[in-house]
Amino acid sequence: MPIVLVSNLAPDAERRWVALLQAAMPEEEIHPAVDFTGDPATVDVVIAANPAPDKLAPFGSIRFVQSLWAGVEHLVHNPALPPAAPLARLVDPNMSQAMAEGVAAHVLALHRDHARFARSQRQRVWSKDPQKLARERTVGFLGTGELARACMRMLQPLGFSLLGWSRHQRAIDGVATFAGSDGLQTMLGGTEILVNLTPLTAATRGLIDARLLAALPKGAMLINVARGGHVVEADLIDALDRGHLAEAVLDVFEIEPLPADHPFWAHPRIQVFPHVAAQTDPASAAKIAAANIRRFRRGETPHDLVDRQRGY
Amino acid sequence: MPIVLVSNLAPDAERRWVALLQAAMPEEEIHPAVDFTGDPATVDVVIAANPAPDKLAPFGSIRFVQSLWAGVEHLVHNPALPPAAPLARLVDPNMSQAMAEGVAAHVLALHRDHARFARSQRQRVWSKDPQKLARERTVGFLGTGELARACMRMLQPLGFSLLGWSRHQRAIDGVATFAGSDGLQTMLGGTEILVNLTPLTAATRGLIDARLLAALPKGAMLINVARGGHVVEADLIDALDRGHLAEAVLDVFEIEPLPADHPFWAHPRIQVFPHVAAQTDPASAAKIAAANIRRFRRGETPHDLVDRQRGY
Repeated sequence: MPIVLVSNLAPDAERRWVALLQAAMPEEEIHPAVDFTGDPATVDVVIAANPAPDKLAPFGSIRFVQSLWAGVEHLVHNPALPPAAPLARLVDPNMSQAMAEGVAAHVLALHRDHARFARSQRQRVWSKDPQKLARERTVGFLGTGELARACMRMLQPLGFSLLGWSRHQRAIDGVATFAGSDGLQTMLGGTEILVNLTPLTAATRGLIDARLLAALPKGAMLINVARGGHVVEADLIDALDRGHLAEAVLDVFEIEPLPADHPFWAHPRIQVFPHVAAQTDPASAAKIAAANIRRFRRGETPHDLVDRQRGY
Repeated sequence: MPIVLVSNLAPDAERRWVALLQAAMPEEEIHPAVDFTGDPATVDVVIAANPAPDKLAPFGSIRFVQSLWAGVEHLVHNPALPPAAPLARLVDPNMSQAMAEGVAAHVLALHRDHARFARSQRQRVWSKDPQKLARERTVGFLGTGELARACMRMLQPLGFSLLGWSRHQRAIDGVATFAGSDGLQTMLGGTEILVNLTPLTAATRGLIDARLLAALPKGAMLINVARGGHVVEADLIDALDRGHLAEAVLDVFEIEPLPADHPFWAHPRIQVFPHVAAQTDPASAAKIAAANIRRFRRGETPHDLVDRQRGY
């Protein structure tokens, strides 16, 4: 039975993805939705890249959905997604590695004041303060999932003290972990660099608000590499302008690309990155999607299934 | 016999250092040179922080010199340094750790294009290219000494491919090493991020010149955390302006503080840092100097003696 890639991508990008997916599973017949002229009722597997509901709607008979992306916050709420079809998100070790490298780069750059020195350079000012070692610096994570744990494993040998918070407490070697709203307050109070890597759900939308930021010590710094929807933008700007938060590194935004007139672009304490903390490696992603679809074809439970109630 | 700290520091800074040194070796009598009124001929140990020759000259009877700094390129050529007195440089594990963290921060920031994204942000441009993983990126070191090896140990678990060049070839686990001028050309040809951590000697002054930069592949990036004298400034600017070298991170300069009218400040491809790759931790440095002076007092060979012929 044919497989269709249903996406919000431009037609050419959708076709390029299909070429990679077809190469990764030559035993299957894969079509880009944009070119599919067959009977949608014959399609039992959809590969999904954030399709609009009307694009997904024709495929009502599907029995398995493989997301091309790791984040499924749009897909789980897609009204055209058949309620009973198992949905797998894409978990790619290359992407975990890319995320860990990206977060380590941001943590070290904040730890070593790169943004402050860049401001000094623009003013031709030569000035320095005493320096902390990584072992004197605490990094707290919102989220303790796959990607957060990959980051922790990379930061640990650098010497940072690590904290992690999640909905349900999870034991992680060498990391002090917290859960619940009391646990969150405790963790934030000891966090100098906060890394957001929690999934975006109804429970975490707007989590990074005035109250959360106030619970951080003065001078704390934020790295958001999860989703723009986690951050209440006005509260973030206020905390920076009052000097409570020292720096923010933002890789994700409520609207992407970030609109040209958005105040984040010109804020002296905000570093804007164009959603590059962990780019998908198409060749690698195609192979992982193929392996999961083969599991489904063999009657095995696919990997990385999403709990659609929970949202991730 | 009294010990004197002879330095190029301001009088108050010299006195603050003496207070720390005195606390680290209460059994000794330590004076700042600025306040010393005794007979210089009674002084057998000098702690030296880059003193001008006329400040060091009175202490002709010294039998041991402990540098307060790791770099001794000024001190070894100080004409007032008694030729026979053993000279130790300061090797502080805290400083190696600080250097490793500082270099890892620069390597990761270059690896992940922080400077390019900062330029995009100033133009409100959202644009990205495919991303490399650390394992697809080669970092080459000029120098394989204490500090370079500390950096390599930190970069290794991040996944980077590592190369190292020094005067005499040295085997380092997991690092491809090179020596001599042929070895240098070979290493440079495979280096995407070049880290300079070689000592400044007559042989390495001006090492980073047009010829060396031309041997790097197009798009390579430079991190200089050793000494300003290693770099031929005009050649560096030329390589950046021609687009051969993509970025330069400079922590050290021929004249420090970097003069306000220096072209490095405003160059779009140069990041200026005010000599902060590894700041001395005074309390820790005082303890290490004390331990080495105690070795000398016990008649043992002090640690970290400098080969004055070689210059480091």
